[in-house]
Formats: sequence, structure tokens, C-alpha cells
Amino acid sequence: MGEGFSRRTLFGAGAVAAGIAGVGLTATAGARVVQPATATEPFYGVHQAGVATRPQAYTTIIALDLRPAHADRAGLRSVMKLWSEDAARLTQGSPALADTEPELAADPARLTVTVGYGPDLFDAVGLTANRPAALRTLPNFRVDRLESRWGGGQLMLQLCADNLLTISHACRILTKNVRSMTTIRWVQRGYRNPASASAGASMRNLMGQVDGTANLNDDAALEQYVWDPGADQPWFAGGTMLVLRRIRAEMDTWDEVDRHSKELFVGRRLSDGAPLTGSRESDEPDFTAAVNGIPVIPENSHIALARHRSDGEQFLRRPYNYDDTPPTGQISDSGLLFIAYQRDPARQFVPVQQRLSEADALNPWITPVGSAVFAIPPGAPVGGYVGQQLLER
Amino acid sequence: MGEGFSRRTLFGAGAVAAGIAGVGLTATAGARVVQPATATEPFYGVHQAGVATRPQAYTTIIALDLRPAHADRAGLRSVMKLWSEDAARLTQGSPALADTEPELAADPARLTVTVGYGPDLFDAVGLTANRPAALRTLPNFRVDRLESRWGGGQLMLQLCADNLLTISHACRILTKNVRSMTTIRWVQRGYRNPASASAGASMRNLMGQVDGTANLNDDAALEQYVWDPGADQPWFAGGTMLVLRRIRAEMDTWDEVDRHSKELFVGRRLSDGAPLTGSRESDEPDFTAAVNGIPVIPENSHIALARHRSDGEQFLRRPYNYDDTPPTGQISDSGLLFIAYQRDPARQFVPVQQRLSEADALNPWITPVGSAVFAIPPGAPVGGYVGQQLLER
Repeated sequence: MGEGFSRRTLFGAGAVAAGIAGVGLTATAGARVVQPATATEPFYGVHQAGVATRPQAYTTIIALDLRPAHADRAGLRSVMKLWSEDAARLTQGSPALADTEPELAADPARLTVTVGYGPDLFDAVGLTANRPAALRTLPNFRVDRLESRWGGGQLMLQLCADNLLTISHACRILTKNVRSMTTIRWVQRGYRNPASASAGASMRNLMGQVDGTANLNDDAALEQYVWDPGADQPWFAGGTMLVLRRIRAEMDTWDEVDRHSKELFVGRRLSDGAPLTGSRESDEPDFTAAVNGIPVIPENSHIALARHRSDGEQFLRRPYNYDDTPPTGQISDSGLLFIAYQRDPARQFVPVQQRLSEADALNPWITPVGSAVFAIPPGAPVGGYVGQQLLER
Repeated sequence: MGEGFSRRTLFGAGAVAAGIAGVGLTATAGARVVQPATATEPFYGVHQAGVATRPQAYTTIIALDLRPAHADRAGLRSVMKLWSEDAARLTQGSPALADTEPELAADPARLTVTVGYGPDLFDAVGLTANRPAALRTLPNFRVDRLESRWGGGQLMLQLCADNLLTISHACRILTKNVRSMTTIRWVQRGYRNPASASAGASMRNLMGQVDGTANLNDDAALEQYVWDPGADQPWFAGGTMLVLRRIRAEMDTWDEVDRHSKELFVGRRLSDGAPLTGSRESDEPDFTAAVNGIPVIPENSHIALARHRSDGEQFLRRPYNYDDTPPTGQISDSGLLFIAYQRDPARQFVPVQQRLSEADALNPWITPVGSAVFAIPPGAPVGGYVGQQLLER
């Protein structure tokens, strides 16, 4: 703070004084915050927004750790209150408290702020007994080539919006206000096709495939597979578990594969995402169809293995593409931020991923390089804060 | 190539054969490329697109060098032909030749592909005598803290579009097809407020300011200040010079400055971008207005110093915000990709930047960390390629 103010005095006290007296009045009289027509998503509620919310075009996901001096219940409560207060305002198009760039809050663009708790958080803050049993680090899969820089984190912020400027501003506000209590561990950024996002249709990933067709899509399914009923930890009723897998696309070798083979690996047509046994994306795949005894949708195609084999294996997918600056000597570093929500990853996501890891025809072209799991607490009650059900018991 | 094909055989020749015979026909019969309603910008013309084009929401700028074995006239011609052929198709919503993800080309989203030549290119390919005299590395400015990772490059690709997926795909195609002849030196990504971009209004930068108000805005001004008349190098008629400055915003100290001081540093109101002497963004600043003898717009404010002091100091600005992953221990790494087009940077941009460098009240909060200059050749004649006027003389 001292630095900023001492620098400011270089500008000349006379001019500043004139500005405040003369121009300041003009500015106040003439000021109007330009508020474009825009859409908002609710912040308060039974569930946090950003899970069942129709996917916005962009996401930035940040993992943080509490600094040792604040790794306790009081520290966690402080962070939760600050984040919730700011998120409640920013998501509705209002500047945060003491917002230093209030105009950047004018277009909420369906901003959602979703807070998560990593497996290590509960021990760190002395709440071991309150950790949901389903919050566990994923097992290692045979295909994994995990890099530590994309894993871990006691806390997570998932920001989603239809405007990148909105995300940049929210990200800055939310991390700035807790910087004395937290450190940033990693940041991942993703996007979807904005047209598809608006239409609510499936997106295309950077391998050219229509992605995320088979998905949970009604409230009853969400109640059954996504939202926690609180049977294990009553405070967690209305929460869910997020699995984030950073999956690199091996584009250089993928681009060498011919089109028909690509479709067989996936089990869907590239042109429109229809299963190889159907004519529209929404058609149910027919895994029994065969030509000369050979399945039309190969048994080791991605969709045949990814499909749930029992009701319990279903989860909500909300993926984003990523396309980052390539390392020296390469021309791209892109892939998918696979994001899934469910009550219990060990029972819902893991068995599916186990099958894919063993036999998915796509495996040579997709490499998981990051993996993280977070408990998503229930939504904040009106005027309250995320985590209140845990911290005010 | 060998690796991809050998991997593919793991999938089973039987299934692949069935797919081609059985499913392949279905796919062909049922295929339809989903072509969303979208806008296109022309590729061929007197000038390259992406300069006078109304700014799209996103940009990716890539600097490349020719590999030593291809650093000659033939190598440059090969790269130019490949890029032009692909760009002519992609900008119109058609897949590139041998496009491996053709569906990702379906939404051109006003894609423009703008090719540039760095100062080192002409010597490298034996065309020293044909280098436009105005293409020179910028002098060092007192405020510069340049990092070599954001400078240089024999070749440049500026991709702009209203859809990030479109940019990712075009970027991949254009760099992939020349990878045997080039290496990538750096990549910079930027965005504007999509709503502003659509409306053609000025954008806001991440410091909260309305940015780019004073700008050239009619064809006569572009003819006079931007497009080269070919007097120096006849082949360059219709070209222009790009200056790219990567300017980091020192948000941590900027956020400590009070609002009135910020407005005085800039000379414009934060709320709506109006000059401190006016009521609307488009109002002409009155640099003579004073209160008690003190100028309302301070003499060392950004707009007072940035304003042209002779007609020759005008140029076309087309800035983008950047917001990258922060280095360890920081919470943001953001700023502006300042992009300006003009006939002669030494006569148009440099005198303005010299003034700003010496006295701009904003200097403590903005740090140039990257600097690059590229000659933008004239547009490709219909069916021809960028650089043809240079290479087919």
C-alpha cells in the first residue's frame, strides 16, 4: 500500500487536488455504469451453481492451499465468507465490496462461482471427522501419466461465464481478497464452442468429436446420482463430488488416423455425433447391432466402454476444451478438461474409467496428465456462506 | 506417421474393415456438416484482412522462424503458399485441404489470418534489397523491461475470430502444415469484451479503463496513415507495419490507487471513458480547459501524451487484453497486447511512445515486457498467395 501511495504523490498533489475538487464533481454528476443486457445465475440456493447450470462458454479453475498460519477452522471460515460475499455480488452484476474495477463487474454473463474442498483440507483444519467418506483421491489408472503440477489443492474455485473479461475480473477479486491466507497451486482454463454453449447442444472437442452426448439431463437423475443426500455427513446434504481430469490429446498421431478408424474408435460419426448405429446424435447406440457377426459399434470403442453397465455408474459431465501454449519444439498442447459430478466417484466414475483405462480404443491418443477430486459443499443459504453447514454446526 | 498406423492396427483389422464396408456407407449417406449461421471476412484483396477488420473477440499471435534448411526464397514461398491456401478456405468456413478435423472449420466466426515478416527475414532469405525501409526494430524506451521470450520472429501469424475453437483449429492447421520448415518462437493470446467487439464499441482493459477510443476510423485516414503507397518498395504497396507491445498491468499497485487519481492518470472517466472535460466517450478532450489555472486533463495524463502532436503521429490501434497463468507466488499475470498498424513506426508510433515513456502518469502501473515489429505484406490476389508481389517479381 505504501508503494502505491508514494508513487501517486509523484503525480503532483496540485493536480490531484484539482481533480477531486473540479473534475471529481463532474465525474460524479455525469457517472453512469453501463449495464449491458445480460443474464445471471443465482448464487444462493440448496446447491451451488456451476454444476447443474447449463455450461457457460468459458471456465477458469483454480486450486489453492491455506497458508500454514490460516490452516484452521477460523481461517477456512474467513475465506468462505469473503468468497461468498464477493460471489453473491459479482454473479448478479454488482461490483464486489471495495471493487477496484467496478465497471468490469457490469456484465455478469451467467457467472458462477463454485467452491470445492480437497481431500487434504479436512485434516488440515482439524475437521477430519466431518470429511465426506466419498472424498478420496482417485486410484492410479494404467493410462495415467500424471504431472504433479495439475493435481492437489485444499481449496478449489471453479469460475464459469460467457465472457472472459468477467472471469478475469472475478478471478482477480476472489484470489486477491484471500491472498494473505492462501497460495495458488494451479490454474486451468477451458472453453466450449460458444454457439453450442448457447444452444445447450453438445460441444466439439479439439479432436473433432461431438463430446458429452450421453449425460444426465433431468432433476430426478441429478437427485439420484449427483446431489448428496447427507446420509454420511448431514452437513453435506445437497453437495456433490467433482472429478477433474486433464486429458491431453495426442494430436500429432491422431491426425494420422483415417476418418473411418476415428469413428470406430469413438463409436460415433464425426460429422454429427450420431452413434454408428443411428442417424442423430440423440439416438440411443445399439450395441447389439452387427454386420457379418462383427459389432457395428466395436466393443472397445469409447462409447461402448464408457456407457454405464449398472445404474450406479452414471454421472454428470461438464467438459471444456483446453488449448495452451505448446512447449518448445511442439506445435500444440491441447485436450480436454474432463469434469464430472457425482455422489461417489469410487462407485460412479472409477469403474467406468477402469474399463476405459484397460481397453479404450482411443487410449493411444488421449493421455490423462492431471487428476483432482473436490467435495462441492451445498449451496449457501440466502445471506450466508458456502461451508456454513460445516462450520456453524 | 508410422507410429500412428502401427497403433491403429492394434485396434483390429477386422473391425476396421467392417467399419469401412458397413458403417462407412451409412456414415456417407447420413453425413451432413452442421453449418451454423456465421459471418465471414474476405481473404483475398488489396490489403490483408485483420487490420482494418472490425476487431474480433479473440486473437492468437504466433511468431515463427524458418528452419535453416528452408531459410531461402523457395522456403518462404512454400510457407506462403501453404498458409494462403489454407487461410483462403478456413476463413470462408471450408475445411483446409486434407483437414483432419473438418467439422471444426464449420464456423469461421469472422476468422482472419494475417501474415507478417520480421526485420530478420529479408536477410535470412536473401532478399535484403527488398526490405521495406520502415521495417526496423524499435529503439529501447526508458520504461521497457523487455523479456526475450516475447520478441523477435522472422514470420508472424495473427489469427482473429469470434470463436476460440475456430482459432484453435486454424492455429493447428497452419502450424502443422509448415512444421518441417519452421519452428515456433512464441505464442500470445488475447481477448476483448465480446459484447463490445460485436457492437464495434471500445473495449475495457483489465485495469478497468475504456481503451482505444481515439483511433483512425475512416478509409481516407487508413489510406493516409496505415496502408503503404509502395513508394519505397513497389511490391509492398497496400501493406502496413504492425507494432506489438506486450504491456503488463501492475495490478497489485494499481488496485491501491484511488479512483479519482486513476482518472487523472488516464485523463478519462472510468465509468464511461469520457474525457475529463466531456460527457461522452466520443467527446474530443479539451486540453486547454483549466480550473484555477490547473489543467482539468493533466499534462502528463496518458491521453494528453498519447495524443498525436502532428498529423504524422497517428496510427490504427487494435488492442487485446491478456490474462495468463500467474507465476508462483503471484495471483495474476495480465495486461494488454497493444497492437498498432501504421506506414512507418519510426515516424508514427515511436515519437508518441517516446513521450509516454518519459512522462506518462500511468508508467508506474504499466510495464512493456515484449516488443516486436512485422511488415504486413499486401493482400493476396484472388487465387494467389501472400507475398506473391515480393516473390514473383
